[in-house]
Amino acid sequence: MALKLDKNLYGFVTEQELCSMQGAVDDAVNKIKNKTGAGSEYLGWVDLPVTYDREEFERIKTAAEEIKKCDVFIVIGIGGSYLGARAAIEFIKSPLYNTLKKDTPDIYFAGNNISTSALNELLEICEGKDICINVISKSGKTTEPAIAFRIFRKYLIDKYGEAEANKRIYVTTDKAKGALKTLASKKENGYESFVVPDDIGGRYSVLSAVGLLPIAVAGIDIDAIMNGALQARNDLYCGPSDNDCYRYAAIRNILYNKNKVIEILASYDSALIMTAEWWKQLFGESEGKDGKGIFPASVTFTTDLHSLGQIIQAGKRNIFETVIFIKDSDKDIFIENDADDLDELNYISKQYLSLHDINKCAFRATVMAHVSGGVPNILFELDSRDAANFGYMVYFFELACAVSGYMLGVNPFDQPGVEEYKNNMFELLGKNKNK
Amino acid sequence: MALKLDKNLYGFVTEQELCSMQGAVDDAVNKIKNKTGAGSEYLGWVDLPVTYDREEFERIKTAAEEIKKCDVFIVIGIGGSYLGARAAIEFIKSPLYNTLKKDTPDIYFAGNNISTSALNELLEICEGKDICINVISKSGKTTEPAIAFRIFRKYLIDKYGEAEANKRIYVTTDKAKGALKTLASKKENGYESFVVPDDIGGRYSVLSAVGLLPIAVAGIDIDAIMNGALQARNDLYCGPSDNDCYRYAAIRNILYNKNKVIEILASYDSALIMTAEWWKQLFGESEGKDGKGIFPASVTFTTDLHSLGQIIQAGKRNIFETVIFIKDSDKDIFIENDADDLDELNYISKQYLSLHDINKCAFRATVMAHVSGGVPNILFELDSRDAANFGYMVYFFELACAVSGYMLGVNPFDQPGVEEYKNNMFELLGKNKNK
Repeated sequence: MALKLDKNLYGFVTEQELCSMQGAVDDAVNKIKNKTGAGSEYLGWVDLPVTYDREEFERIKTAAEEIKKCDVFIVIGIGGSYLGARAAIEFIKSPLYNTLKKDTPDIYFAGNNISTSALNELLEICEGKDICINVISKSGKTTEPAIAFRIFRKYLIDKYGEAEANKRIYVTTDKAKGALKTLASKKENGYESFVVPDDIGGRYSVLSAVGLLPIAVAGIDIDAIMNGALQARNDLYCGPSDNDCYRYAAIRNILYNKNKVIEILASYDSALIMTAEWWKQLFGESEGKDGKGIFPASVTFTTDLHSLGQIIQAGKRNIFETVIFIKDSDKDIFIENDADDLDELNYISKQYLSLHDINKCAFRATVMAHVSGGVPNILFELDSRDAANFGYMVYFFELACAVSGYMLGVNPFDQPGVEEYKNNMFELLGKNKNK
Repeated sequence: MALKLDKNLYGFVTEQELCSMQGAVDDAVNKIKNKTGAGSEYLGWVDLPVTYDREEFERIKTAAEEIKKCDVFIVIGIGGSYLGARAAIEFIKSPLYNTLKKDTPDIYFAGNNISTSALNELLEICEGKDICINVISKSGKTTEPAIAFRIFRKYLIDKYGEAEANKRIYVTTDKAKGALKTLASKKENGYESFVVPDDIGGRYSVLSAVGLLPIAVAGIDIDAIMNGALQARNDLYCGPSDNDCYRYAAIRNILYNKNKVIEILASYDSALIMTAEWWKQLFGESEGKDGKGIFPASVTFTTDLHSLGQIIQAGKRNIFETVIFIKDSDKDIFIENDADDLDELNYISKQYLSLHDINKCAFRATVMAHVSGGVPNILFELDSRDAANFGYMVYFFELACAVSGYMLGVNPFDQPGVEEYKNNMFELLGKNKNK
């Protein structure tokens, strides 16, 4: 089990360039190890796979078992309180999780937008179903989840009465203060509560209760996720200073300095679409500041070879690709021989060539094509789409992102630019006008 | 009903700059009107809303009524044979179309990837369900849809026997030749067939049978779509030469020349996610060639304000946004007063402020924030998410894309870069080796 960084960047980045970056890498890593960099109060994710709260971890599992008895589980959260859990469920289970037969609840994500139709549809889906909710918000005052929680809390009270509703509301929030904490702690409510750690920012929080409760409800082994993350910590953070994670951070910065200003995360399975969305927040929000930052985009191949493939192959040469390929596959499918062979597929209807082998060929063919078109390709192989590999990948990218951000000269843990639209919105809506 | 281009680009593009582009706009438009530009053999989409085949159109409706009797409808196609129909269904119906209660079939898209798990899951979903399929491929030999069709055709034959399976297979392909046409025309098969027009490329084909059959099966009024497109043609192609569509094409090129190399299509509803994917293919594949082209990306707000919002607000200033906001909304939702007001939402719990009004405020607040952060914003308002508005929007962007591509100096109708990975793949897989 490992994210393996293919060194072959085909001349876009030389081994010598990479070597010359080692000092900058070491500086960045030392800022993390010694907590001397900007935003060092948010480094809780570094030791999380070792230090996580075992008592809370067991309560998460107990809560998940209780929640599994319901039909529909609504997870209310935005940004880091949304993307990580959804990424995990789609990666490990399926992007069609809700549609497939299973013995765990349907899981819907709410409170991550202000769309009227999205909320109406979700209320329609809940009709006649047995519901539990998990609201995730550090302050309890973020507009989108606060609106959704006010609506779904009332919905539960109307449906079940106050006492029963209280048992169906699970809160993930600040350990001590804030609107949600106050509400949860009220004697008459007594919501089961979990903690958004003080020293872990939203986009680094998937391995805390923020992500783990919804992930556990989907029937995923959260011990395996934490073990995967722990192995990544051992291999990378505790490993040699020229490991693949740090090399990835260095290569990104080398390419950025060569005016490769767009990084496309590519995969070969739609199960990774939300992982890419999680990755886009992680890198975009960590590095996109002070007029700097690689713009993170994503594609799913071979689907998007028939869409963005053209511009990747032959457009402006300001992009590079980071490709994740999953080595193992699901139950193999083979293509049967056809007497007529009008579609000319018989050449791949061989019992030793599975559909996954063909996908692998498409992957290799695409790397060759894009590299020859002038697009640097960074290749990662992941063994499988299991929980341990997910945990490993999460830790790998979190650490790479922190190192890369420090190398870029930014604070990888703040997000000052997110406030501006909020302030304008409060102004337009007249918040605090009557105070 | 109109896509309205807000002229206010807040100083990034002056009215004078726009005026100075009018000659280039007129040249591009004339290449379309006189069919003198590169790729002019693919201009069939221009007159399609006027000239479309009425006999086939009625057959599409009849076929859709027949298909509606089944439980699950599998649409096999890739690129332009996939994105347009899915965009329409999610835009007009819902991104949760398959999950919501309805009197039309569940619709799944296959043959747009080589993922083993995606195909296994789809076969699992089909178990015990009544199935029809539509395979869409001009040649019938494109690897991804050909594989899926071989598998689903056999699945249908095994399930229903050959005679009944033949009635459940709907083919959209070349009018005269190719693997699928040959198969469909065989006397013993006699599949109902529709035409991929010779003079319309994949990414411009959603208003032909390629898109219309799946769209009609979802219970959408395809007459209204064509009427919307017709109105767009009247307003734009037959309209004044400084109309919003051509201004959009001009503004994009002005911004590109100012090194705004990334265009982000932003919306405020997840119902537009697949519309953005369709738009990304349209513009990316049309313009991304000869070392040129704006890189098309997309976001859904307010969701992604808590993800890519930071880098848009404060990252490298090489991006601009094109924002679509839908004026009308679904059944209004209002936020009720709460005695405690711990979440401090009471200030918006007013009967005159609906959730949609709040979304509108978020939209205006975000435009202000991003513009003040140095990101040009092109604003479109669409009246509603109905079929007519969808048809209008499709025609608007198709025409804008063709004009913009000619202004950029490329052939907006070819996609030579898509061949390279295919050739490599055939090589790796050993195609034609034994011939």
